[in-house]
Amino acid sequence: MAQANDSPLVTAAVLVIGNEILSGRTQDANLVYIAKGLAAQGVILREARVIPDIPDIIIATVNELRAKFDYVFTTGGIGPTHDDITSECVARAFGVKLILHPVAHKLFSDYYKAGELNEARLRMAMVPEGATLIANPISLAPGFNIGNVYVMAGIPSIMQVMFDGVKQGLRGGPPVLSRTINCGVPEGLLAKGLGEIQDRYADLDIGSYPYSRRGQFNVALVLRGRDAQRLDAAKAEVAALIRDLGGTPVEE
Amino acid sequence: MAQANDSPLVTAAVLVIGNEILSGRTQDANLVYIAKGLAAQGVILREARVIPDIPDIIIATVNELRAKFDYVFTTGGIGPTHDDITSECVARAFGVKLILHPVAHKLFSDYYKAGELNEARLRMAMVPEGATLIANPISLAPGFNIGNVYVMAGIPSIMQVMFDGVKQGLRGGPPVLSRTINCGVPEGLLAKGLGEIQDRYADLDIGSYPYSRRGQFNVALVLRGRDAQRLDAAKAEVAALIRDLGGTPVEE
Repeated sequence: MAQANDSPLVTAAVLVIGNEILSGRTQDANLVYIAKGLAAQGVILREARVIPDIPDIIIATVNELRAKFDYVFTTGGIGPTHDDITSECVARAFGVKLILHPVAHKLFSDYYKAGELNEARLRMAMVPEGATLIANPISLAPGFNIGNVYVMAGIPSIMQVMFDGVKQGLRGGPPVLSRTINCGVPEGLLAKGLGEIQDRYADLDIGSYPYSRRGQFNVALVLRGRDAQRLDAAKAEVAALIRDLGGTPVEE
Repeated sequence: MAQANDSPLVTAAVLVIGNEILSGRTQDANLVYIAKGLAAQGVILREARVIPDIPDIIIATVNELRAKFDYVFTTGGIGPTHDDITSECVARAFGVKLILHPVAHKLFSDYYKAGELNEARLRMAMVPEGATLIANPISLAPGFNIGNVYVMAGIPSIMQVMFDGVKQGLRGGPPVLSRTINCGVPEGLLAKGLGEIQDRYADLDIGSYPYSRRGQFNVALVLRGRDAQRLDAAKAEVAALIRDLGGTPVEE
């Protein structure tokens, strides 16, 4: 998307770590949540990547993404089992040691009865040296932030409280606003006029998303940008285009 | 995952192209479908990536992924509007021209009445030179295959018929099999024994996936591999571990 003002774009990537997503067993539910939260903070989500639980791949991808984007949000792989390797891989990506975080250690010591705090559970209190904790009010085991990387759980309910806890502190630009108009005019008829409107509003991002509902194809036309007046002006032109083509614009 | 036999692994990546996924507007539904279909064909999905409708990013990512994996499946961006730029970007990635495909052209000419086949609709009959078409029985506009890249629609119903049309022709290894056991034993208690089972079955991939249902945390233990006997043997050990810890293994 082109810029609507002079503030520099703040960008982010989401890194979903987990074989269960790549095997098709689990439908990812975290990307949508993070994407919406980032947009509200004025952070542009530029990429999402799903990778398997393989150390070399995790390390290389964390390093690639943190160099490329202002923020990286990872989900998955911070539990107590052998396949939870995100924390140690992030430590290796940053070239630091994995240490027992004193605050997390105390949280766990206070919570578990004597004898219950075994080696596996202690692993969840290990973070890369220099990391700060991300609170997990649901099931205790924290996420963490190191550099521009935010490491969160994979379970959606836990990921959401973690993300909500950090998002207010993100340095973003003005929020990305959107306007949406639905209609039943075929995309093939809308295309020419819509392209012309996009050309006149290069500061906005106009998307055309066909969808079928009860066997009927409709199109959602979504305008996104940071300037409400420009959005409203472009929206009026899109609505006029739809009417010119015999359709009925339905605003969302 | 380690190999269960001597056949080389066949790998794939999914490339989801579309601002609507990164903005959080649309929940991707295609990755799970492709992932399951590939697993059944014995193709290992190694990565999924979501990128915006930006030409340089699409071109670079297509070239990166097609060099790295045996197969690349893209979704989105092959409609008639200005934001549908996948076909031209794939052509540029392969360094070939975008041409009007004669078969697609005839399909469209036969379907549309005189005057209806406008420039926007003709764009959907344009493919990179040398590509073969992927049929779209739902809404006509085809996908295409060039080299090891399969370009498909973003609308799930259409993507699915396209993928079903090509998946039988993929060269895969033996299918990846799985066994799943659920239990209510906390991961922190399972972790030690489960890690030991994983060590003894290095040819299998054992994942531990906690989930909450009606406020209760459970764990799904998923064993994946290509050798049914090894899977069953490991599954029996996991079930015994659960019983040793006082739990009840529930097979899926």
